[in-house]
Amino acid sequence: MRDPRSIAVLGVTGYTGFELATLLLRHPGVPPPAFYVRETNGYHCLSQLFPQLRSRAEAPLRTLALDAVTSSDAGTAFLATPHEVSAEHAPRLRDAGIRVIDLSGAFRFASAETFTSWYKLPAPHADRLADAVYGLPEFYADEIRKANLVANPGCYATSVILPLRPLLQAGLVDKSQNIVCDCKSGASGAGKEPRRDLHFVEVGENFRAYNLFSHRHTPEILEHTGIPESQLVFTTHLLPVARGILSTIYVSLDSPQSSGDIEKLYRDAFAGKPMVRVWPAGKLPELQHVTNTNFCDIGFTLDKSGKRLIVVSCLDNLGKGAAGQAVQNFNLMMNFQEQAGLL
Amino acid sequence: MRDPRSIAVLGVTGYTGFELATLLLRHPGVPPPAFYVRETNGYHCLSQLFPQLRSRAEAPLRTLALDAVTSSDAGTAFLATPHEVSAEHAPRLRDAGIRVIDLSGAFRFASAETFTSWYKLPAPHADRLADAVYGLPEFYADEIRKANLVANPGCYATSVILPLRPLLQAGLVDKSQNIVCDCKSGASGAGKEPRRDLHFVEVGENFRAYNLFSHRHTPEILEHTGIPESQLVFTTHLLPVARGILSTIYVSLDSPQSSGDIEKLYRDAFAGKPMVRVWPAGKLPELQHVTNTNFCDIGFTLDKSGKRLIVVSCLDNLGKGAAGQAVQNFNLMMNFQEQAGLL
Amino acid sequence: MRDPRSIAVLGVTGYTGFELATLLLRHPGVPPPAFYVRETNGYHCLSQLFPQLRSRAEAPLRTLALDAVTSSDAGTAFLATPHEVSAEHAPRLRDAGIRVIDLSGAFRFASAETFTSWYKLPAPHADRLADAVYGLPEFYADEIRKANLVANPGCYATSVILPLRPLLQAGLVDKSQNIVCDCKSGASGAGKEPRRDLHFVEVGENFRAYNLFSHRHTPEILEHTGIPESQLVFTTHLLPVARGILSTIYVSLDSPQSSGDIEKLYRDAFAGKPMVRVWPAGKLPELQHVTNTNFCDIGFTLDKSGKRLIVVSCLDNLGKGAAGQAVQNFNLMMNFQEQAGLL
Amino acid sequence: MRDPRSIAVLGVTGYTGFELATLLLRHPGVPPPAFYVRETNGYHCLSQLFPQLRSRAEAPLRTLALDAVTSSDAGTAFLATPHEVSAEHAPRLRDAGIRVIDLSGAFRFASAETFTSWYKLPAPHADRLADAVYGLPEFYADEIRKANLVANPGCYATSVILPLRPLLQAGLVDKSQNIVCDCKSGASGAGKEPRRDLHFVEVGENFRAYNLFSHRHTPEILEHTGIPESQLVFTTHLLPVARGILSTIYVSLDSPQSSGDIEKLYRDAFAGKPMVRVWPAGKLPELQHVTNTNFCDIGFTLDKSGKRLIVVSCLDNLGKGAAGQAVQNFNLMMNFQEQAGLL
Repeated sequence: MRDPRSIAVLGVTGYTGFELATLLLRHPGVPPPAFYVRETNGYHCLSQLFPQLRSRAEAPLRTLALDAVTSSDAGTAFLATPHEVSAEHAPRLRDAGIRVIDLSGAFRFASAETFTSWYKLPAPHADRLADAVYGLPEFYADEIRKANLVANPGCYATSVILPLRPLLQAGLVDKSQNIVCDCKSGASGAGKEPRRDLHFVEVGENFRAYNLFSHRHTPEILEHTGIPESQLVFTTHLLPVARGILSTIYVSLDSPQSSGDIEKLYRDAFAGKPMVRVWPAGKLPELQHVTNTNFCDIGFTLDKSGKRLIVVSCLDNLGKGAAGQAVQNFNLMMNFQEQAGLL
Repeated sequence: MRDPRSIAVLGVTGYTGFELATLLLRHPGVPPPAFYVRETNGYHCLSQLFPQLRSRAEAPLRTLALDAVTSSDAGTAFLATPHEVSAEHAPRLRDAGIRVIDLSGAFRFASAETFTSWYKLPAPHADRLADAVYGLPEFYADEIRKANLVANPGCYATSVILPLRPLLQAGLVDKSQNIVCDCKSGASGAGKEPRRDLHFVEVGENFRAYNLFSHRHTPEILEHTGIPESQLVFTTHLLPVARGILSTIYVSLDSPQSSGDIEKLYRDAFAGKPMVRVWPAGKLPELQHVTNTNFCDIGFTLDKSGKRLIVVSCLDNLGKGAAGQAVQNFNLMMNFQEQAGLL
Repeated sequence: MRDPRSIAVLGVTGYTGFELATLLLRHPGVPPPAFYVRETNGYHCLSQLFPQLRSRAEAPLRTLALDAVTSSDAGTAFLATPHEVSAEHAPRLRDAGIRVIDLSGAFRFASAETFTSWYKLPAPHADRLADAVYGLPEFYADEIRKANLVANPGCYATSVILPLRPLLQAGLVDKSQNIVCDCKSGASGAGKEPRRDLHFVEVGENFRAYNLFSHRHTPEILEHTGIPESQLVFTTHLLPVARGILSTIYVSLDSPQSSGDIEKLYRDAFAGKPMVRVWPAGKLPELQHVTNTNFCDIGFTLDKSGKRLIVVSCLDNLGKGAAGQAVQNFNLMMNFQEQAGLL
Repeated sequence: MRDPRSIAVLGVTGYTGFELATLLLRHPGVPPPAFYVRETNGYHCLSQLFPQLRSRAEAPLRTLALDAVTSSDAGTAFLATPHEVSAEHAPRLRDAGIRVIDLSGAFRFASAETFTSWYKLPAPHADRLADAVYGLPEFYADEIRKANLVANPGCYATSVILPLRPLLQAGLVDKSQNIVCDCKSGASGAGKEPRRDLHFVEVGENFRAYNLFSHRHTPEILEHTGIPESQLVFTTHLLPVARGILSTIYVSLDSPQSSGDIEKLYRDAFAGKPMVRVWPAGKLPELQHVTNTNFCDIGFTLDKSGKRLIVVSCLDNLGKGAAGQAVQNFNLMMNFQEQAGLL
């Protein structure tokens, strides 16, 4: 009999995996998870891999083999694995009766074509995609509570969908103007694998735009905001910081609004949502306000015409942008407090 | 009899002043300038103030008093002084027959009202403003060659006007869509005076937007691109780097263009302009390509519709954004090669 | 009747104050403290001052007046105030029956002369100094448990005394050779007040030695290791990081030792000491292993002669080097688990 | 007939190669060199590889094949190649009558055994080693002027030998005390090849010691200072900066000296040596004073006993620590001004 509080984490060597490990080991509602990595290098426990964790948190480290996971008593699996590994493993874990929270892109789209065309990888079977719930708790909490397979959103997508959707749902947005999302992320978002362009000397004292008109998080944003592709401009940049995303979002409004109106709209939209913090009108969050947290902070400035709105959203790409959001989804699935282990 | 090659630099303690000193001391066409600072602290030569310069460049350091400058044989004065000091000093230097290149905002606007309303300072007399030429060499070389008072452009403004103006002059821009300029600058742009928000701990591992809808470089951009205020959205952000500006500029085009068309337009616009480097279509400059140079690099990406254009421009805020551009203006005024001392 | 679990924190605007606030607000054994600052700027609660804390931790913010503290029910006061303010306030708080943990240098020395000669400030009365206990829990736990006034050690001093003292107490150190402590700290150690030499541009991409032969932490090291002044060389450097100290310590041994011997010596010395982590022989801790923790990590390498030992110790200057150690002292005074709220 | 001013640079893709290219392209006494790389990736000129150089410096880029070099008219070859490639290529270039300046470790030692035991690679033939001159211009200028094969020193070694040798030669050093060299370098010193431990996230906000008692620059230091191995302690650390080395060097003196004595000793030792800058007693150079220069700066502090001396030396690991020093050696070999192209 599987206990959903018994957790397996697959793929823990990367930055997201480490963050997930840290959060779950401190989570008040669960026993220490079992951690699986492709190669243990002879290590037996997590803190041998991550000396930061010594004396703080201990848990067994195991070689990743799907049989080992399915034959354990694990009731929930977090997948911090590459897209193609998740695409293959998640269905087999589900078949074994294990709930899955997948942090890759494999299950984020209803359509297999969307995945394949943006990721250039074979998509999971359509039935599996249909079972998956997009794990953005602020908008899909009911679905997540009942889900067995949650696709954790992309970090950039989270920073863009959260602030845009309330404006769109309120019908405030001028449909004739482009919505420009100029997003900037720290280097941990690019993963831990050695790459020349991620060498300290290539990132420090540097800044660059990348993947213009081609970033993989684009279809998530389209799908969960409903913005037509022709209206969205979404760009990504690499900041010389380890962690954090700040997105500057430019929206034109149909009719003039007051700052108070916009603030109220955001406060209402995120009332009872513990992991989003709305800032007072005219005050803007900075990256440091959210690094090492699991919040998304949202602030804005309105021009004097009341029709041009700039929204600034910040989150930690490893927190609310990945591991923190995965734990938030888990909390919903378990009927825990949504913020358990996240403050 | 004044020799225009005899240079006085007023205000050399800040980052711009230091950059100017370095450029002028290496300039092949001029003798070592005299440097003036508010307080010499007992130092007699520049390298006592800036040990980096020891054994490389020597020049006298003097206490800043206007009489000392006007009674010297200086023919050209560079002002790296605060707006209000420039506003006061430049007219008196001009009256003494000294050519002035002012790096502050004091003489950038034809209208005194514009200066006063954006800078909250008394403007120079209207006659003086009328004498000043806006020192953007790529567009105003003829005027600069004949000028006696040059107002060196703002760093952000330079990074925005250079890439936008050719598009606008070609009549390609869709007038119904906002032009969004999302600009990011290193911390030297904020000056050297100690401020809590510029403390290493407050800038490192951080990133923030600031002065939205209120940055002082806005009126320069409006004036020298001709974009209506209602169409321009211009934002500034603080990067955790010492130097450099990268501006991501979003423009909608009236009709579909090919990448080749846009590249050709830029190549034609900047043909014979040695300090602007146009990148091949689809390749984008990064901050590191321009730091410690005096270039502005311009690259772009066009979406598949051919109507949405993202232009990335980079420059060093102390180089092409300030001291380098001042020297470029000086070169034009002296009939030197435009790039003398700048490569 | 004062409750020692009722805490007042004096001086919370600096980096140490903020760290202390964060730790105490998450501490399982105490109610939210009252925080006092010189100027509240109209704020009423801590998260207005530190937006990072919004939705995570709330506590009242009050204007610092000693009467307000003594007339409250506070039983313990943490002083994150300047040396001279602590020197004045601590005695008055003690007189009111409040236990004091002082993070300044005011009460670290038995001798008033030592304080005055190194800090150039008037020392507290000798009786008060005699009452104070040096708050290094690994060596003075018994005294701290009974103390009413604890002088929290300096950050550099902690990083040096912890690894040196076990070697000295074991009689292994060659008394004829200098002990060299080459220490490097992040910029938060220099405090939050704006200073030109702490501007982002002056610290980033830079590194400098400072206060050679004159750093104020010297007398603490001498007093608590017993090393003669003529044998100690202690230097400090500023790293371009926000937080953390790494000290490289060079010790010559009287007779050849094996790595196993040294490792055992350290393991024995810190057995049951939860906030020190001894590394296996030949493996060295890095700054990242301890930043945002309250540990001091100790590793070492021995040369092939077995007589020249290099010890590397790391800690977070705001954690084990300041606020974390203060809470550790508090835990001892309260008979809490030593590591409560610190893992 | 070979012209020694006709230069070939072998291996230009790394950080040192790029620095060398930049220096040589600006050198007033030589025509643009030919640059050779293992793979041109279809590029024909250097600025395609390094966009920073566009419009500033142009030179052909060629596929590295030894025949191509020897059949060209090149008279001097700079080798910025790996140790084993230099060991193989240098002799063949010499046989073809080309002068060689090698930036690797292959020819730094008189003894093949030294090279092999520290580098774990086959050494060049002993005759070749005997022909090589150690390229530290401040001490071996005469030999370098006559040399045909120069082994450019290691970056750390340069920062340590320069300040130590004058003290040793003056007979001031206490032979019974260890000489401790605690050295810190930026990340470009570790090369450009992608490595997980050089990822931005692993170096930024971090600091670590490495290769204690085993760094390959040790034998150079021993050989060119004459310090017995048992007296030298040399450690290296990785700084979160792109470039620069700062070495803190601890020396005990036989008898008390005054600061004036030490300053005079250094001034005398480096009189007429343009690339070393001696600082006034008690003032210390910082990393920023030398980054992007080709100087080594030396400052010191003496304790009140006059017997314990701390010397701080700084250089840019790519400048005086590598490419700058190579050009300085070249200048000597060519009877150019020693500082030509280096200020």
